[in-house]
Amino acid sequence: MTPEDTWTIVEAPFRPALARAYEGLFTLGSGYLHVRGSLEEHLSDCPQNLQYTRLPANVTSERFPETKVKWGTYVPGVFGRHPLLNLEMINLPHFIGIVPFVDDERLDVERGEVSDYSRRLRLRDATLVRTLHWRTQAGKTVELRFERFVSADRPHLCVQRLVVTPHDDIRLAIQSGIDADVRTNGHDHFTSVSCQPIAVDGVRCRILTDLGETVEIVSHLRGSTDWSVAESERAVGRATARPVSAGESVIFEKRTAVCTGRDLEASDPTALLQSASRATYDELHEAHAAVWRRRWSGCDVVIEGDDPSQLAVRVAVYHLLRAHVPNDPRVAIDPKGYAGDAYWGRFFWDTEMFLLPFFLYTDPDRARTLVDFRVQSLAGARANARRYGYAGARYAWESAPDGSECCPNWQYADHEVHVTADVVYGLVHYARAADNENYLRGPAAEVLVETARYWMQRLDWRDGDSGPSLLGVMGPDEYMPISSNNSFTNALVAFALRAAAEYGAAGGADQAELAAFAQAAASLPLPRADDDALVLQCEEFPRLADPSFDRLWRNRSRSFASQVSQERLYRSKCLKQADVIMLMMLDPDRFSEEEAKRAWTYYLPYTTHDSSLSAGVHAIVAARLGRDQEAWDFWQRGKAVDLDIDHGGAAEGIHIANAGAVWQMIIFGFAGMRTAMQADTLTLHPRLPAAWRRLTFPIVWKRTPVQISVTHTEVRIANRGAAPLAAGVVDEVRTIVPQEEEVWAHRR
Amino acid sequence: MTPEDTWTIVEAPFRPALARAYEGLFTLGSGYLHVRGSLEEHLSDCPQNLQYTRLPANVTSERFPETKVKWGTYVPGVFGRHPLLNLEMINLPHFIGIVPFVDDERLDVERGEVSDYSRRLRLRDATLVRTLHWRTQAGKTVELRFERFVSADRPHLCVQRLVVTPHDDIRLAIQSGIDADVRTNGHDHFTSVSCQPIAVDGVRCRILTDLGETVEIVSHLRGSTDWSVAESERAVGRATARPVSAGESVIFEKRTAVCTGRDLEASDPTALLQSASRATYDELHEAHAAVWRRRWSGCDVVIEGDDPSQLAVRVAVYHLLRAHVPNDPRVAIDPKGYAGDAYWGRFFWDTEMFLLPFFLYTDPDRARTLVDFRVQSLAGARANARRYGYAGARYAWESAPDGSECCPNWQYADHEVHVTADVVYGLVHYARAADNENYLRGPAAEVLVETARYWMQRLDWRDGDSGPSLLGVMGPDEYMPISSNNSFTNALVAFALRAAAEYGAAGGADQAELAAFAQAAASLPLPRADDDALVLQCEEFPRLADPSFDRLWRNRSRSFASQVSQERLYRSKCLKQADVIMLMMLDPDRFSEEEAKRAWTYYLPYTTHDSSLSAGVHAIVAARLGRDQEAWDFWQRGKAVDLDIDHGGAAEGIHIANAGAVWQMIIFGFAGMRTAMQADTLTLHPRLPAAWRRLTFPIVWKRTPVQISVTHTEVRIANRGAAPLAAGVVDEVRTIVPQEEEVWAHRR
Repeated sequence: MTPEDTWTIVEAPFRPALARAYEGLFTLGSGYLHVRGSLEEHLSDCPQNLQYTRLPANVTSERFPETKVKWGTYVPGVFGRHPLLNLEMINLPHFIGIVPFVDDERLDVERGEVSDYSRRLRLRDATLVRTLHWRTQAGKTVELRFERFVSADRPHLCVQRLVVTPHDDIRLAIQSGIDADVRTNGHDHFTSVSCQPIAVDGVRCRILTDLGETVEIVSHLRGSTDWSVAESERAVGRATARPVSAGESVIFEKRTAVCTGRDLEASDPTALLQSASRATYDELHEAHAAVWRRRWSGCDVVIEGDDPSQLAVRVAVYHLLRAHVPNDPRVAIDPKGYAGDAYWGRFFWDTEMFLLPFFLYTDPDRARTLVDFRVQSLAGARANARRYGYAGARYAWESAPDGSECCPNWQYADHEVHVTADVVYGLVHYARAADNENYLRGPAAEVLVETARYWMQRLDWRDGDSGPSLLGVMGPDEYMPISSNNSFTNALVAFALRAAAEYGAAGGADQAELAAFAQAAASLPLPRADDDALVLQCEEFPRLADPSFDRLWRNRSRSFASQVSQERLYRSKCLKQADVIMLMMLDPDRFSEEEAKRAWTYYLPYTTHDSSLSAGVHAIVAARLGRDQEAWDFWQRGKAVDLDIDHGGAAEGIHIANAGAVWQMIIFGFAGMRTAMQADTLTLHPRLPAAWRRLTFPIVWKRTPVQISVTHTEVRIANRGAAPLAAGVVDEVRTIVPQEEEVWAHRR
Repeated sequence: MTPEDTWTIVEAPFRPALARAYEGLFTLGSGYLHVRGSLEEHLSDCPQNLQYTRLPANVTSERFPETKVKWGTYVPGVFGRHPLLNLEMINLPHFIGIVPFVDDERLDVERGEVSDYSRRLRLRDATLVRTLHWRTQAGKTVELRFERFVSADRPHLCVQRLVVTPHDDIRLAIQSGIDADVRTNGHDHFTSVSCQPIAVDGVRCRILTDLGETVEIVSHLRGSTDWSVAESERAVGRATARPVSAGESVIFEKRTAVCTGRDLEASDPTALLQSASRATYDELHEAHAAVWRRRWSGCDVVIEGDDPSQLAVRVAVYHLLRAHVPNDPRVAIDPKGYAGDAYWGRFFWDTEMFLLPFFLYTDPDRARTLVDFRVQSLAGARANARRYGYAGARYAWESAPDGSECCPNWQYADHEVHVTADVVYGLVHYARAADNENYLRGPAAEVLVETARYWMQRLDWRDGDSGPSLLGVMGPDEYMPISSNNSFTNALVAFALRAAAEYGAAGGADQAELAAFAQAAASLPLPRADDDALVLQCEEFPRLADPSFDRLWRNRSRSFASQVSQERLYRSKCLKQADVIMLMMLDPDRFSEEEAKRAWTYYLPYTTHDSSLSAGVHAIVAARLGRDQEAWDFWQRGKAVDLDIDHGGAAEGIHIANAGAVWQMIIFGFAGMRTAMQADTLTLHPRLPAAWRRLTFPIVWKRTPVQISVTHTEVRIANRGAAPLAAGVVDEVRTIVPQEEEVWAHRR
């Protein structure tokens, strides 16, 4: 690998079976606008307007229609109502199409004679480049180079370029336009579509969604002065044709702007294109690349000695940076990172637990919009609580932008209540990491109080118990749908109640309420067994059935859930993902090393890791426990989730929570950094993998920028801020003066 | 009440808000064909072709479209595929319409000036008669009398008559035809519809269902020689008009025959009508009434001293007799008794537990078709087992005619497994009641073995336990969705395994398998608490949350489930219906009186009776326990289920399982008859309600017809068979010679 290879994802050659996985992985986006990495000329026999009824099945075991590729164009927050599945993000009209024809033969990389094919996503400047040689049936050879980027500098704008260089004299034709004949999960959310040519080289598509939102897309083409028009009911295109001589290079450009009725600033795609019209392609690209350079400077994690790991963390960080919508707290980041609609563009607990930490410690302003998302959607959480018959606020397992519950599967919607406590954990995490306690006494205070009021009514009381319980709960392990006193849930709820007791006066709670919050927090049990040595996932766990993995889980390359019925999962000692172990990751000092080891050896044999959220948590805890080989194995597994093209990878979108976990595995696992929830002072407990020579990364610790470097023999922490910084490695705390670096000798 | 009043349900006057409830209650049927009691002329603003998406919601809390009336025409077994809800019985074209016009004004009992309205369902001869006086807007008065019956003698045939007698000279017009513009649960199951006039006075409608079944309906009209035709895409009608003088009576007749491609004998509606054409209305009616007289003679329960109870049991028995499909084991009886499609015409555990006993002890041949239904659907049960990953056969919670699972709600489909044991209970019950042990060694043997094989794989093994468990189970109480070792389920499964061990050799099981069945049966636990005094519904029950009925169940006239969220039901000590108590009803000798009383006092305060299956079970156990007032209260509640018109009653169809329970409350509760599962000798333990003077009923005990009469001072048992019969009252057993009666002195 060259150094640039650790900044580049490469597809070469083209293989149809992998096209959909690359399409997800190659998603470009500006936060505001996201486009999957579809081929400009598309493939044949691959319609994108299939109408079907996606049922409220279990998404983890669901099978999606097996199309070779799947277009995806998303503006976060543009939602529609699905007749069975509630609100979902809408897949918008497809505007990146550019189809070259040579002597009337259409480019088809699947069926044509194509060589030297490569497609590269340059992570450094978020630019997708494809080059190929195409030999037509008539025997003529043409070189093609497609480039595109969604501008980080002008977030409504997508810019594309095509360079055609024939080796023979040819007649070249180009078709390009906007295609609104698309569906979202098989459903048509457009109540009206208007597609028209505009000016002499443009096309415009206006749609109205079933929730009354307008979306307008305008494309302008460059590279010809003679563009004919092709219109149909739900599409509009332009075409041009000309002879090209051997060796001549012809350049076409397509610039598209997307605006919607919910944009924070009034916007108009024609005006946006107009304002960009005097800039050249290179100028637009440089402005875009400059934004990405600034972004990377604040978060690039450098791993020396392991190029595959280096590439993996850059892929993860690229998608985290791409998927975050700057300055718009009306949305967060959906589980597919706006690179697919399999999870309907909704917001899960991923936000607080898997995504927020990366932003908290690299760019607190971006983190702020994620926590503000929960503050702004409080009304929806209140409505959820009312619908379930409770006071206060109950955050949705699958949240629409307005906070309303959209999950169509009752076992999650009804029982996976920990999300409401996770939200509070995120608010407090933000306040501590950004050193902004006022946030909890200000914007967040009402969330703290309202969610605590919900918990006070959600608590259960049982005969013979002196304190409350939380019954009928699904914890993080989704293979235990209805359980009693799930430790993770109880611990997080107790945390949330304590936070409400501490800061709730500002949110309208009186003294009696605050005292009740504190008392409930103190009395929620964490069930244990084996003379208290084993923290139980829930009271029922020891009495579940043996999962009989040897007999029932024959093919370990596929999930356990794909090989047994749901009812067996629901009665067996099989975990989908970390549950007690996740609690120990979040709150390590609460448990002794003995307890952590006991939990590890007890639960691990039962854990299927069927969830992509599992590996990262296990890697972090393994690193802390000094289980280096297991930590390394989980790292390998976690970093591969989206890059494992052969097994589907990102076909349905990026596993963005896992991308957050990739970053956490390095920072919280191998560098052993304690979060601001775990320590007031920046502290590292490094467990660098043997294969890594050096690990270097920037973070922001309570507003102070810090540069950290870890090797097998030393740790360097550089204070890049303006005030002294206390920092420690294991137990050795020092004060670092501004703009200086301290070095700790260290031996793993 | 006159004696005839205890044979008649009366609607008078017409009230639109109650129309739908009477429509269900007035359902007529021949077993083969069923028609809801809709008004011949229909109502205005009440379209029956509303297309909507019925979602897989929880049927007990579901709300149905609020139409004033709902047509329903059913041939059991004619199913279609609903896109979301799997297979369902199809609502067939509506053929009972007859619309009178006077001087061009259409009869409308809701909006017109109608007096002396009464509609009577004569239970004795299963005939529906409506009479009314109608004063038109022009001030003319007309007497109308509508009659109809679905012939018990010719089960494909429905015969209708309309007699019009004006008080003034009028011009009378009649329209009548077949309307195929109907839906089933909002869905259109017809892939083709062909409606045509035939002959000079007939109409024909042929439909093809989405499963490829043909249904053909032909109507012929009488009473005019001049019938014009009105055709539309999905309907066809005939019309005639003539002047009628004051005092003259005009009679119209409509005869309709329905045949389908799945009829057991090749049939043709035109031929069937032809063969009936020479019979007069009265002759057809008399042949029909004769069948009903024979039916009643074998099962009429006579209660002296309580006319409302007398009527209630006759209503129940009428619908049981109507809904049963004679000689067709490809279907059983659906939960709405073919008087509605809310439960999709599928077959539930109701068959064995609530419906079968009535037939077993009044008409064993009819009972045989119900148990044969499970034998013939074994292939579907095998397919269900395979789909869940098990060997053997697993009967469906909601069975299609072919045995396949259709329940769209996973908590029931996956977890309410007791139905598979209930099926075996039904087979053995038939064998014992009909004194036909060969049935278990013959047709039923394979069901016994195959279901036992399923159980052997479904058993769970837990660390530290010496025997197996059944985990992840929903018992009869559907508010406890996933529980461990539900006593009812374990007891029934153990019973089924014992039966398989005893008779399974004939079903292909080898000695090792039989031994394994027996051993598993012996080791399934019945969990207990309180020093074994309390039989637990399941292991988790004592640790559920207090249901807080005082706080949460404010309106006791509506179900608890309608006032709290499902997740609260699922974690609270609230029972939807009898669970342990139901086990004690089935197997009273297994439990001491102390245990029964303990269970009664423990569970009753937690029982919501939200299910219509609850009251009957409680009445029977209360009677056995000598809790006479409670038995009486539950009787009152159970007998009112379909007759409580003001609260909806039978609007969505007859609660046919409750109808079976109405009969059981009397026979097993107040007469205290032990079933053939509970005693080898006919035995009564009467607890006659104080208000009843005498209770008289016929039964068949192990092939011997018996007449029983119970008063507060004596019990008479008459042997109507050809062989001596041993029978007892409480502990006093005697032998009754053929055609003689024994009298026991008795004091309650």
